[in-house]
Amino acid sequence: MSSQDVPALQAEVARLQTEIHALRDGGEEITIPNYLLTRLEQLGVKHMFGVPGDFNLRFLDYVEDFPTIEWVGNCNELNAAYAADGYARVNEHSVGVVTTTFGVGELSAINGIAGAFSEMVPVLHITGVPSTDQQAHKSLLHHTLGDGRFDAYRKAAEQFTIAQADITSKVTAAAQIDRILTDLITYVRPVYLTMPTNMVDQKISSAPLSTPLSRRAQSNDPSVEKFVLDEIAKLAKAAQSESEKDGIVILVDACAIRHHVRDEVKELCEKTGFPVYAAPMGKTAVSEEYERYGGIYIGSVTAPEIKEKIENAKLILSIGSLKSDFNTGNFTYSIPVNNTVELHSEYTQVQYATFPNIGMKNLLPKLSNILLSYRSLAIQVPVPPYKIAVPTESNETITHTWFWPRVGKFFKPKDIVIAETGTSSFGLLDTPLPKESVFVSQILFGSIGWATGSTLGAAIAGRDLGLGRTILFTGDGSIQLTVQEISTMMRLGLKPIIFVINNEGYTIERCIHGKNRKYNDIANWHWTSLLKFFSDDPSGKLSNSYTVTNKAELSKLLDDPAFASTEKIQLVEVMMHKFDAPRALKVTTGFNESLEN
Amino acid sequence: MSSQDVPALQAEVARLQTEIHALRDGGEEITIPNYLLTRLEQLGVKHMFGVPGDFNLRFLDYVEDFPTIEWVGNCNELNAAYAADGYARVNEHSVGVVTTTFGVGELSAINGIAGAFSEMVPVLHITGVPSTDQQAHKSLLHHTLGDGRFDAYRKAAEQFTIAQADITSKVTAAAQIDRILTDLITYVRPVYLTMPTNMVDQKISSAPLSTPLSRRAQSNDPSVEKFVLDEIAKLAKAAQSESEKDGIVILVDACAIRHHVRDEVKELCEKTGFPVYAAPMGKTAVSEEYERYGGIYIGSVTAPEIKEKIENAKLILSIGSLKSDFNTGNFTYSIPVNNTVELHSEYTQVQYATFPNIGMKNLLPKLSNILLSYRSLAIQVPVPPYKIAVPTESNETITHTWFWPRVGKFFKPKDIVIAETGTSSFGLLDTPLPKESVFVSQILFGSIGWATGSTLGAAIAGRDLGLGRTILFTGDGSIQLTVQEISTMMRLGLKPIIFVINNEGYTIERCIHGKNRKYNDIANWHWTSLLKFFSDDPSGKLSNSYTVTNKAELSKLLDDPAFASTEKIQLVEVMMHKFDAPRALKVTTGFNESLEN
Repeated sequence: MSSQDVPALQAEVARLQTEIHALRDGGEEITIPNYLLTRLEQLGVKHMFGVPGDFNLRFLDYVEDFPTIEWVGNCNELNAAYAADGYARVNEHSVGVVTTTFGVGELSAINGIAGAFSEMVPVLHITGVPSTDQQAHKSLLHHTLGDGRFDAYRKAAEQFTIAQADITSKVTAAAQIDRILTDLITYVRPVYLTMPTNMVDQKISSAPLSTPLSRRAQSNDPSVEKFVLDEIAKLAKAAQSESEKDGIVILVDACAIRHHVRDEVKELCEKTGFPVYAAPMGKTAVSEEYERYGGIYIGSVTAPEIKEKIENAKLILSIGSLKSDFNTGNFTYSIPVNNTVELHSEYTQVQYATFPNIGMKNLLPKLSNILLSYRSLAIQVPVPPYKIAVPTESNETITHTWFWPRVGKFFKPKDIVIAETGTSSFGLLDTPLPKESVFVSQILFGSIGWATGSTLGAAIAGRDLGLGRTILFTGDGSIQLTVQEISTMMRLGLKPIIFVINNEGYTIERCIHGKNRKYNDIANWHWTSLLKFFSDDPSGKLSNSYTVTNKAELSKLLDDPAFASTEKIQLVEVMMHKFDAPRALKVTTGFNESLEN
Repeated sequence: MSSQDVPALQAEVARLQTEIHALRDGGEEITIPNYLLTRLEQLGVKHMFGVPGDFNLRFLDYVEDFPTIEWVGNCNELNAAYAADGYARVNEHSVGVVTTTFGVGELSAINGIAGAFSEMVPVLHITGVPSTDQQAHKSLLHHTLGDGRFDAYRKAAEQFTIAQADITSKVTAAAQIDRILTDLITYVRPVYLTMPTNMVDQKISSAPLSTPLSRRAQSNDPSVEKFVLDEIAKLAKAAQSESEKDGIVILVDACAIRHHVRDEVKELCEKTGFPVYAAPMGKTAVSEEYERYGGIYIGSVTAPEIKEKIENAKLILSIGSLKSDFNTGNFTYSIPVNNTVELHSEYTQVQYATFPNIGMKNLLPKLSNILLSYRSLAIQVPVPPYKIAVPTESNETITHTWFWPRVGKFFKPKDIVIAETGTSSFGLLDTPLPKESVFVSQILFGSIGWATGSTLGAAIAGRDLGLGRTILFTGDGSIQLTVQEISTMMRLGLKPIIFVINNEGYTIERCIHGKNRKYNDIANWHWTSLLKFFSDDPSGKLSNSYTVTNKAELSKLLDDPAFASTEKIQLVEVMMHKFDAPRALKVTTGFNESLEN
């Protein structure tokens, strides 16, 4: 099935669902929660996350009773927001949903919402709030600030969401819901909805549900678009005539994934034959097994053989670029603006000229067609295969230099690979992933602890979509922030593999500052008891846990088919030196300590 | 030592410390962090909480090197904020401090800050932020929202703090710090400080440090104050002449603790002999062993024998009242305004008349003197001792009705007793505590998970102050939100007793709504492995853990001197029925299910 069929099928599904709901509700009436849940069902939501609290309990009755959406109760609200974020990242054409309670719940989740804002992940945040009467009377309720300011939490939420709605009237409820959900899928950033306790049982018309929601139209002005395409064509012609070798390359980044142009990018690559590279946040936007894919570009941190291919190109077609510090090797891109065309969701930049409202979703197919003629020339330029060998080292210590290539050989197609901010996300940059695998990392916002919560959501989405294994790489420092969510994974029967790098604290921070400072130390936990503790399983029948202290032990484990088949949830404690770090992290931070120090 | 000596001694300590710092720094120069830390030292801070992040690491160098303040690294930022809150609650004349990093860290802490705002707990929130240059250039740094809005986090913080300061210049740094710290100690609500990375090593004059900070003066206008005292005297005279039996009672609440009038209230009680009661948030403001203390008033939820004493009184002197739902039995106070004088930190209300700027700190001593003459009459009114007997029940199941009186007998003077929102805080309301004990609970804000983090801070403050044992009561649902902070307790060698009520989920929510709903279920953990896991101590030498399933087992444990002496950290899993709840919770929520259901 091609992805072009998806909208048509979605529309048909929505139409049928609406008919069912209309029949169920006597033809015209539906409760506000069921209206909202039906919309979410239409958007492909199968799981929702959150924590119950007295202001959202009646709303949760509707969620629990809704046939096609499953409630996932989390251990805390921040973890729930991270899970909704991970769910939305993997279930790419859908959205994540987190439900919290007034004040105490929603504020605990806010850092997860801010991260989704920063990284452009579509998450709906629903909060159960006091009744409209209680709000109007400024009652001194629990969970309030004690001073009658019922708008304080919403004001905080406004900083980290692109749209907000308070359901305060039956008359406007449907329109409010539809407005913020349309913003959510159009701009792929979080939106915020408050559901007062007295609105939960109100009934409204289900009629709007027969029209499924769609992204706000972003049609490019035909004459401007033609002008832009002509400009790009001129640059392409000049680039390929000047030099056959280092002519034109494609560079994909985060927004190619977030704004759903994977298919259009694939078409551009295949029609033109141009070599293609990815920024860290664009990793796996193009299959890393694709024959014309050359690896990761990250400014001065780039492996030298890749760096020159990009920086010597005469024209770079940059798609969905997001030039944050960690995504660009601390702003060390060496690509002249004069040689660059940047394609974004809402504008295009050709050299120094910006063309507002010329979006890549519509531009890319046309661009593929006008650049088609360069294919025969382009494919003569060799692209060295993006592979990394497992190095031979003289001792048995597990080093980052050895570890990441070694686990790279363990990955399979369709695996979901989650990298925590820190040594893990830097380590995986240099590790090619198989086709159809999904790389999940929070490189811009970089909130430690995010990866564990996100793994829960990613694993659920992976199960819903029939993807492969879920594999988390995290550190002994990072996992401590959100560790309890592993118990939710076990409660739901999920079976991720969790690699915990035990290197005695916050190694990424030791690289940045305070190498020997006590503030970078943490408590050591008995890692191999973790899964037994969180599942009330002292005998360890429900899980497997391992500690590997040397290369042989780790290799043996990775080669064990029982381990690789993930019949149970598994945790691997990987012992590494506190001053060892992946190449990319050392280059980024200038940290270069001998492991003997 | 009387508390009147405290300000004078504090001033002398501050003067001597300043001299030392001046000598150390060559007479006139001090770094901005050391200026701030010296101020905190003057305010009695001995421990600070938080999580390192690259924007605060250089600031933490100064913290780690500061001789009299110890850095406590937490597992996550929300827990750190809760710990700072617990520290400030127990170290009553000082403040709590939490340090986080830009964006990801500060937002994770914000719910803890909002709770401190709501409950009037003085907490300083310090955040390490990018350099002033990076902010001015709107650099696309990690931890940003990706859109150049460097003020978004501060705007969120403004909702939950009473003052903010950005250290952006050497010239104003000292004044900014002094301003927000003065607000902090005056209004006992959180304040927010950002420390850009490029300001950390800047030096400023230490001269202001020779003048210690003090609360902003709140002097009552003498003529208004005299008028108010005359009005109260008239009401007192009428009340006592009408009836000798139910004349005048005192009711203390939260703000008597927060605004530091414990001593003044004690003087009022002792000089007048009036019976004294407490609202839930005022519990232990007056010793619960005091002979004229009658127990807890909570509107219609009040035990009947106590309720009539208060509601039949002709005059109620209400001190530091905070009429939130859970503090008043869902707004069921039955005290006519006509019979009430309310004393607050910044105003006084006599019947229906409000007198702004007549604060209780200055008013109370004068009130004690003018009401002195009623003592001989007042002490003839008997106050039934506030005691609760352990009931005899026909079966061995541990019920709430039996549990709370039973643990009541276990408490000793100077114990710090922390009650999580939920069954624990309702259960402890009816349980008298010994003299000099400290009751810590978050009754207004009611954020579940708060108690575990708060216990860390409370235990540290208790150790600093030479108090007794720290005893936490929490539920299996609540502890899951913040459980990892127990590892920090163990890392610091703290030895609290942690009672975990295992009743299969969120019982307080089952009482409110959704008694049999799945959303109120949680994962069951292997509770007796918790302490072993979090301290990397599989053999269990560093801790003791117990499960008690019946009354005999619990009584035996409580009577064991080794258990009571808290030589090690200890956890007690208490098995209780999922539909059982304390009396006060059942009355508040109208939940009254048979345990057989």
